[in-house]
Amino acid sequence: MIDKRWQDALYITEVINDEGLEGHTYVPNGLKLKTSSPLNSNPGTNPEQLLGMSLSTCLEATLQAIEREHALPHTAAVYVKVAFVGSKAHYEFLVHAEVSLPGVAPALAQAMVTEVEDRCPVSQLLRQSANYTISLAK
Amino acid sequence: MIDKRWQDALYITEVINDEGLEGHTYVPNGLKLKTSSPLNSNPGTNPEQLLGMSLSTCLEATLQAIEREHALPHTAAVYVKVAFVGSKAHYEFLVHAEVSLPGVAPALAQAMVTEVEDRCPVSQLLRQSANYTISLAK
Repeated sequence: MIDKRWQDALYITEVINDEGLEGHTYVPNGLKLKTSSPLNSNPGTNPEQLLGMSLSTCLEATLQAIEREHALPHTAAVYVKVAFVGSKAHYEFLVHAEVSLPGVAPALAQAMVTEVEDRCPVSQLLRQSANYTISLAK
Repeated sequence: MIDKRWQDALYITEVINDEGLEGHTYVPNGLKLKTSSPLNSNPGTNPEQLLGMSLSTCLEATLQAIEREHALPHTAAVYVKVAFVGSKAHYEFLVHAEVSLPGVAPALAQAMVTEVEDRCPVSQLLRQSANYTISLAK
């Protein structure tokens, strides 16, 4: 954590998991969620859903800003799919975000998808991975 | 989504945000969470917390597997910090994971941190970003 930008952060949150996949993840004095493997029927969310929630909200928030900059009404919606793939030797997640921009001309809509991929902070973290893709909904 | 591995996925989840940062993110017929900007006092979680929850749970789950492989008792805990940095021109997230492995010899503990960074699927997605770091708790 040598990166000096931590000192000028607009916001910092801490999140803990000290139990396991069948356990809880929580923000101290904040949100606490039950977690469970997606491969059993126990109640609880999982890393795949939580990553999809983070990415979909980040993309949607950034699209709202882009809509405002273009004086467009807010019509954007973001649908994220996260897949758990592989086998015991090596597991990976695949992440695909589909952006719906009803009422926006196709060329502008495509430009907005390219822009949101660059600007959304979660998208920036993922975009060097070949497992992350984003597209405009047909 | 041309990647053929989607077809052989062990699990796929879909997550939607069609409202905005002041809105909700939800799994159809599943978990629904209120979201809000971390920079106001409205109730709700945010992309920073959700990313921290996904990463902490993924790392903790993978550490449990590594502990089992070494016939160690489960003592691992994962503390993730996510910072929102930048200004209107360009925002980014910084992500730091700290791994606590009480009772594990230092050399083995350090090797386990290196291994979990490689094996946890969320860590794999983030690790090409210079904004993501992981360390063993002192």
